[in-house]
Amino acid sequence: MKFKIKKLGFLTGMPVCILHESTIKKMGLHVGNRVLIKNNNNKIISVIDSVSKILHPEEIAISQDIYESLDLDHNKYVDVEIIEPPHSIELIKKKIIGKRLNKKEINEIISNISNNSLTEVEVAFFISSVYDKEMSLKEIKYLTEAMVKSGKTFQLKGKVADKHCIGGIAGNRTTPLVVSICACAGLIIPKTSSRAITSAAGTADVMEMLCKVDFPISEIKRIIKKTNACLVWGGSLGLAPVDDKIIRIERIVNIDSTTQLLASILSKKISVGSKYVIIDIPYGQSAKIETKKHAEELKKKFIKLSKMFNLKIEVVLTEGSEPIGNGIGPLLEIEDVLKVLMRINPPKDLEQKSIMLAGKLLELTNKAKKGCGESVALEILNLGLAFKKFKEIVKAQKGQIKEFKKSDLYYDIKSEHKHLDNKLINRLAILSGCPEDKISGVYLHKKKGDVVEKSEILFTIYSVSKEKLEYAKEFYKEFKKEIIEYC
Amino acid sequence: MKFKIKKLGFLTGMPVCILHESTIKKMGLHVGNRVLIKNNNNKIISVIDSVSKILHPEEIAISQDIYESLDLDHNKYVDVEIIEPPHSIELIKKKIIGKRLNKKEINEIISNISNNSLTEVEVAFFISSVYDKEMSLKEIKYLTEAMVKSGKTFQLKGKVADKHCIGGIAGNRTTPLVVSICACAGLIIPKTSSRAITSAAGTADVMEMLCKVDFPISEIKRIIKKTNACLVWGGSLGLAPVDDKIIRIERIVNIDSTTQLLASILSKKISVGSKYVIIDIPYGQSAKIETKKHAEELKKKFIKLSKMFNLKIEVVLTEGSEPIGNGIGPLLEIEDVLKVLMRINPPKDLEQKSIMLAGKLLELTNKAKKGCGESVALEILNLGLAFKKFKEIVKAQKGQIKEFKKSDLYYDIKSEHKHLDNKLINRLAILSGCPEDKISGVYLHKKKGDVVEKSEILFTIYSVSKEKLEYAKEFYKEFKKEIIEYC
Repeated sequence: MKFKIKKLGFLTGMPVCILHESTIKKMGLHVGNRVLIKNNNNKIISVIDSVSKILHPEEIAISQDIYESLDLDHNKYVDVEIIEPPHSIELIKKKIIGKRLNKKEINEIISNISNNSLTEVEVAFFISSVYDKEMSLKEIKYLTEAMVKSGKTFQLKGKVADKHCIGGIAGNRTTPLVVSICACAGLIIPKTSSRAITSAAGTADVMEMLCKVDFPISEIKRIIKKTNACLVWGGSLGLAPVDDKIIRIERIVNIDSTTQLLASILSKKISVGSKYVIIDIPYGQSAKIETKKHAEELKKKFIKLSKMFNLKIEVVLTEGSEPIGNGIGPLLEIEDVLKVLMRINPPKDLEQKSIMLAGKLLELTNKAKKGCGESVALEILNLGLAFKKFKEIVKAQKGQIKEFKKSDLYYDIKSEHKHLDNKLINRLAILSGCPEDKISGVYLHKKKGDVVEKSEILFTIYSVSKEKLEYAKEFYKEFKKEIIEYC
Repeated sequence: MKFKIKKLGFLTGMPVCILHESTIKKMGLHVGNRVLIKNNNNKIISVIDSVSKILHPEEIAISQDIYESLDLDHNKYVDVEIIEPPHSIELIKKKIIGKRLNKKEINEIISNISNNSLTEVEVAFFISSVYDKEMSLKEIKYLTEAMVKSGKTFQLKGKVADKHCIGGIAGNRTTPLVVSICACAGLIIPKTSSRAITSAAGTADVMEMLCKVDFPISEIKRIIKKTNACLVWGGSLGLAPVDDKIIRIERIVNIDSTTQLLASILSKKISVGSKYVIIDIPYGQSAKIETKKHAEELKKKFIKLSKMFNLKIEVVLTEGSEPIGNGIGPLLEIEDVLKVLMRINPPKDLEQKSIMLAGKLLELTNKAKKGCGESVALEILNLGLAFKKFKEIVKAQKGQIKEFKKSDLYYDIKSEHKHLDNKLINRLAILSGCPEDKISGVYLHKKKGDVVEKSEILFTIYSVSKEKLEYAKEFYKEFKKEIIEYC
């Protein structure tokens, strides 16, 4: 059926079309049903809302995402077709009651999420079924493959390698360092990162202090050809995009299923054609993964699953009970990175961890002999090659190295300490304005093991606004004892 | 903040308000966030959509359910307040990761579902968490209490009793019979039933062949005072209404959690003040519950939980592998009921089961001596007292006994058989037009155990429309072997 488009310019967070109530009735439909909206060969599945005013029975209003996805800017009419609820609802039910799914079935669910045939509620049921009745490795393999298939992929020449940290540690900006060091040694590293979601900064936010991070794939290929690597934002590239849809709904209740974590990470690596991957699993008090046992289990799954994809992988369990590096927040973290690259007062823990990860990746790719990876990585750093490489990447990403001015608005916390809580330090940085206010954040003057007198400054909170600084101070005062464990 | 209401008369299936994009930005909100909409002391939580046209920045459009719930017909303005995501999201997460919830926590979740503080996606996560990490009996008790608290309740004088079947059997219209028999014996039976949701007919649809079923609570009390009983639709009474919200979302993926089943049934019984309840759990091939073991487990839970509420309960496991009665569909089922009441060619299985259930309820309430319930029930039937009571109820519900004309459009299926599939016979009746077309349905001429020659009619499909009859015929031809198990 053809409908005349009435432009309302509305947004609902998912594809929605509005029809007149009499039209809906005539078509035998109900509010909440799905229809297929078509423009030539483009099509998108949409949910129906109803109005009794503003639209004529022969008119339709469609949400902005439908306009964009169907490229409807110059159209006056659009086709609407009635469709049945997808069969994948049955498959989701099958998983909820604890049965195994085969390759075809998993493909069907993922492709239905991808083309919006499933509503958010249905995706929520899928996510929780996968959370509870954990998938077998075979199922996770099918899920990973289906996710890769849902998006774009690209292939690069050379030894394509990557690194990934499962997250949860404040600061911990090793990525720009590992990428720069390994690119010097000849590895090809198409590193795509996220922006901060629940943290004070993502690698993309941190790199954005110096250069652009949002490029189309063709540009990224050019950057990699020039420099062996890139440090870009993965969000708009369409790599395993179904993963983003799932994560958005997972985040509503803030759960992280192992199944989803494995499929999510590996699908993104496979999409960019990586053959060698190093995974960092930080564990410890206040990290995402709290016990060594759980970290070991996850490591085993990563290894088994990677074998199924012929991916050479090394999984490193790292100390994750404290922040890594001194800065938490985009500006304070890029400064830490530059200090390591420029060999000027580098934060020791950040330097050491980056060298370790780079060393392992060099050994995994046979760029360094077994046992010599760290030495090679340190040499590359000390010779200034990593810094040179980093500058090349920044330049290729249309930026340049610069100096920054810290905010004048800050608050010093003086205290002795034995331990700092990752999650709460991260929270303090967010309250101070991160990641939107890039110069806000927390700077740790002392780290675990450092001798510190009660009268010395333990950390400083920076903020762009008095109000936000006040929020952060209040939070600090309320949760003092949870943030800082005293001697 | 005050907004001017612009009437669009739109419906989305949940409370939604639309604001201008600039207003949303200015308020620091995003599409999908929640706000509180207020009119004097009435308030409702709503999700936000955004438009760039049709609304001025100081205007708001609200969905029909908000109008109705806030009684906004004559208002020009409405108050909008920003609210935080509810804490119960954290509690849902707690359940997802497998922890127990206490009374206060369960109350908080249910009250948040009740007042729309939780979105459908969040409720879906709650449902699946309860499905997988099954709740303890204590938790189910809290859940039941919270559901009762979410709605209206009423108290009646006398021995208040009820019956409930967990469903899944085609035909099986025992309720009008059990209610009529037991009301004769002096029990007070405030029976509220559902309309068909996934079946060909609910008790409310069947009763509607003869009388009204939709009454306000005050009217229902009058009907009960006059006749000791009622046979009404429970949908609009506001008894444990949060249950309806949960069931609507459960149905999206067609799951039935035991937790939800127990809390749902008992909360409705407690809301109408029942003290004695008989529960019918049919089990068997093609029933809702397939094995005796599963039925026994459910029975135990019903008994334990009822004790916690001082509810006297009897749970009966019944043969559920075949349809009960000859008719499936509103008209064909009320005819079966009338045949039993009038003692004219009653379907034996329907009669026998109704007498058994009524007998058990009479014994449970001490209206009959142990072992004598069935005899008393049969006597009430045979003396015509049950029919007289049924006519009283129908009259009190503004109806009368009448005769019906079967549809001229029908299709006979001739076959021998050993077994008929419940779900597929139900499906045939739905395809023929049930429950909307009340005279459509399936009539079984022969039941399990009846001798039937290949040339005899096994069942007839009736329909109001040629098209629908054709659908049903096609379905029969495709699934012949699944519908009928041959000798």
